[in-house]
Amino acid sequence: MDKGRLEAFSDGVLAVAITLLVLDLRVDVNSRDSLASQLRHEWPSFASYVVSFFIIGVIWVNHHALFARASRVDRGVMFYNLLLLMFVVTIPFTTSTLAAYLRTGGADQRVAVVLYGISMEGMAISFTLILWHLVRRNLLLRPVSAEQGRTAVRRFGMGTLIYPVGVIVGLVSPVAMLVLYAVVVGFYIADQTPVLPTADV
Amino acid sequence: MDKGRLEAFSDGVLAVAITLLVLDLRVDVNSRDSLASQLRHEWPSFASYVVSFFIIGVIWVNHHALFARASRVDRGVMFYNLLLLMFVVTIPFTTSTLAAYLRTGGADQRVAVVLYGISMEGMAISFTLILWHLVRRNLLLRPVSAEQGRTAVRRFGMGTLIYPVGVIVGLVSPVAMLVLYAVVVGFYIADQTPVLPTADV
Amino acid sequence: MDKGRLEAFSDGVLAVAITLLVLDLRVDVNSRDSLASQLRHEWPSFASYVVSFFIIGVIWVNHHALFARASRVDRGVMFYNLLLLMFVVTIPFTTSTLAAYLRTGGADQRVAVVLYGISMEGMAISFTLILWHLVRRNLLLRPVSAEQGRTAVRRFGMGTLIYPVGVIVGLVSPVAMLVLYAVVVGFYIADQTPVLPTADV
Amino acid sequence: MDKGRLEAFSDGVLAVAITLLVLDLRVDVNSRDSLASQLRHEWPSFASYVVSFFIIGVIWVNHHALFARASRVDRGVMFYNLLLLMFVVTIPFTTSTLAAYLRTGGADQRVAVVLYGISMEGMAISFTLILWHLVRRNLLLRPVSAEQGRTAVRRFGMGTLIYPVGVIVGLVSPVAMLVLYAVVVGFYIADQTPVLPTADV
Repeated sequence: MDKGRLEAFSDGVLAVAITLLVLDLRVDVNSRDSLASQLRHEWPSFASYVVSFFIIGVIWVNHHALFARASRVDRGVMFYNLLLLMFVVTIPFTTSTLAAYLRTGGADQRVAVVLYGISMEGMAISFTLILWHLVRRNLLLRPVSAEQGRTAVRRFGMGTLIYPVGVIVGLVSPVAMLVLYAVVVGFYIADQTPVLPTADV
Repeated sequence: MDKGRLEAFSDGVLAVAITLLVLDLRVDVNSRDSLASQLRHEWPSFASYVVSFFIIGVIWVNHHALFARASRVDRGVMFYNLLLLMFVVTIPFTTSTLAAYLRTGGADQRVAVVLYGISMEGMAISFTLILWHLVRRNLLLRPVSAEQGRTAVRRFGMGTLIYPVGVIVGLVSPVAMLVLYAVVVGFYIADQTPVLPTADV
Repeated sequence: MDKGRLEAFSDGVLAVAITLLVLDLRVDVNSRDSLASQLRHEWPSFASYVVSFFIIGVIWVNHHALFARASRVDRGVMFYNLLLLMFVVTIPFTTSTLAAYLRTGGADQRVAVVLYGISMEGMAISFTLILWHLVRRNLLLRPVSAEQGRTAVRRFGMGTLIYPVGVIVGLVSPVAMLVLYAVVVGFYIADQTPVLPTADV
Repeated sequence: MDKGRLEAFSDGVLAVAITLLVLDLRVDVNSRDSLASQLRHEWPSFASYVVSFFIIGVIWVNHHALFARASRVDRGVMFYNLLLLMFVVTIPFTTSTLAAYLRTGGADQRVAVVLYGISMEGMAISFTLILWHLVRRNLLLRPVSAEQGRTAVRRFGMGTLIYPVGVIVGLVSPVAMLVLYAVVVGFYIADQTPVLPTADV
């Protein structure tokens, strides 16, 4: 199975999902509040928009880097990739829910934080499953040893620990969680150790 | 006519349609219900989201596999492909309608099940028409005998029987219908007998 | 300027516009009407959905065929192409407006028919401008004589007469207009005389 | 890192963002106003739709022209490109806000003008950062001298002055601002001095 159309389809889904984030930015011309005060009141929407935009952006970069290392894709990759996209596509929903409840406090806010964390964690786990499957089925351009494969999956899988930590932080302060994710995304963009030692980009 | 742009356009439409499914996931911050109770109450939306996401995902895989076997496309293929896309694009609507009426019971629920079935069946029939046209007009990369062609169309067309069965199940229990479709999609992803004997992917 | 990215961008816009048509299909679970009666009442939305879907589909086929004949694109082509896309992108809006007012009769219905006609006519004119510009600036793969060019533009431009005729029909009966457009689209799909004699697809 | 997928992803995001502009065109069939009067009343939506459509269109052309001159992309380019897309994706929101408040006058209107200006200015600055980064890191197909690079960035960066001027005009008359932007876009389409002397398209 040819990986080109898998990449094209994934790019399409990621491009639509990242753009649908804008639907959460909204003001109401019939509101009794001034526009300036509405925009101030809507700051959680703007903050979550920026964080989610860069998270999906980094997902796209990761996706690109991972499949650049694949020689071909099979049914398993296709399935885990659909799983990944299924979680990514929920991000506009969980982002908008988080933004809506970021001001309410209480149990609702904590539920919104957990919901946001689920879409992120599902995405991170799917990503690790794709790499694990590529390694296990020898679908990489440059084969790695069993030991190197395990190390790569373990290092990549560490990404799945960041989101639960974020959720724990978020139960106390959702804003601190967004700041944490923004910092992680920033670090990722500035410099990331390559996952597979034998495949330097 | 070059099949590359037909594939690119179809990928685009499928990517947008699959992503629009998220618009059906929604909570209301002004509701008197807690977020947790809204999410529990919204389980039909989540269940239908997952099932429809993987159905469109499998459509995309099928589309990919089918056109990988085509040498070129003509006006007929283009028309049946538009028909296919027309049904696929209704899936976010019929999914959202099904989710909305999954809790109501009664005649409305049964109408929603039939509506969902129509978009699926229309999609399955269009797919079979594409294969039938490719076989009939010798548009395959590796020509098949008349006998092989009939067999392939017959086997492929059997997919058009699954959805009516699902609708009959759904008239009794829509949840059982969703479970059935999920199982079929799961089987499809795990292993599918190739449709055309002469064209192994 | 490379025509590949112009085609990719146009495919993207056409794919999104055609898929957004689904946003006009909608039922209200809180309505006092049964779902069956809502769907019956919504028939103008379904009829316009099908007609507009195939109109955009045919636009895509035309776009494809036209640019397959272009050797390269310049600033003028790019501008007329943006103009074309600008009209195409309004189709989900004018379709939804037509569907909404198809039951009201009176002046509103006639305004909706004219609005729908404007988006179609703007699209047809932009298309003719693209061909006219390609001919005039010698941007075709196989150059045509001045005489052949004029003939091609004249024949292609005849498409711009169909939509005003449709509007006049629609002022009397919008349903007749939709039927007329459906017939024209059907004819187009079944068989179309090539526009440029020297460039057979 | 391969620039092809960056271009494909950016094309996707730009195509979705430009098409989402249509969601701001809306009439209400249940309104007591006639359709004709609603459309007249909605002129700011139509005017902003056209201006924003061509602004995003020109962004796409610029993006295309800029990356045609890049030999490859690195992490920095990827980051500035995400920044660019993040601002572009806000345009449907700021356009819709501008259109909504274009009739209200007063402080709200001025806030809407500034908000619209921020999305445009953020976009213009991100664009200049991409060029600056490509020059600085020698990522151009044809290397330029330090002096030529500085000149190119300075000339390109002059685009970042147009939007603040537009905002100042807009504080007095938002319509004059839209006319100004339309004129600038028109000039751009008609003729633009190449940014990099050594890289003629």
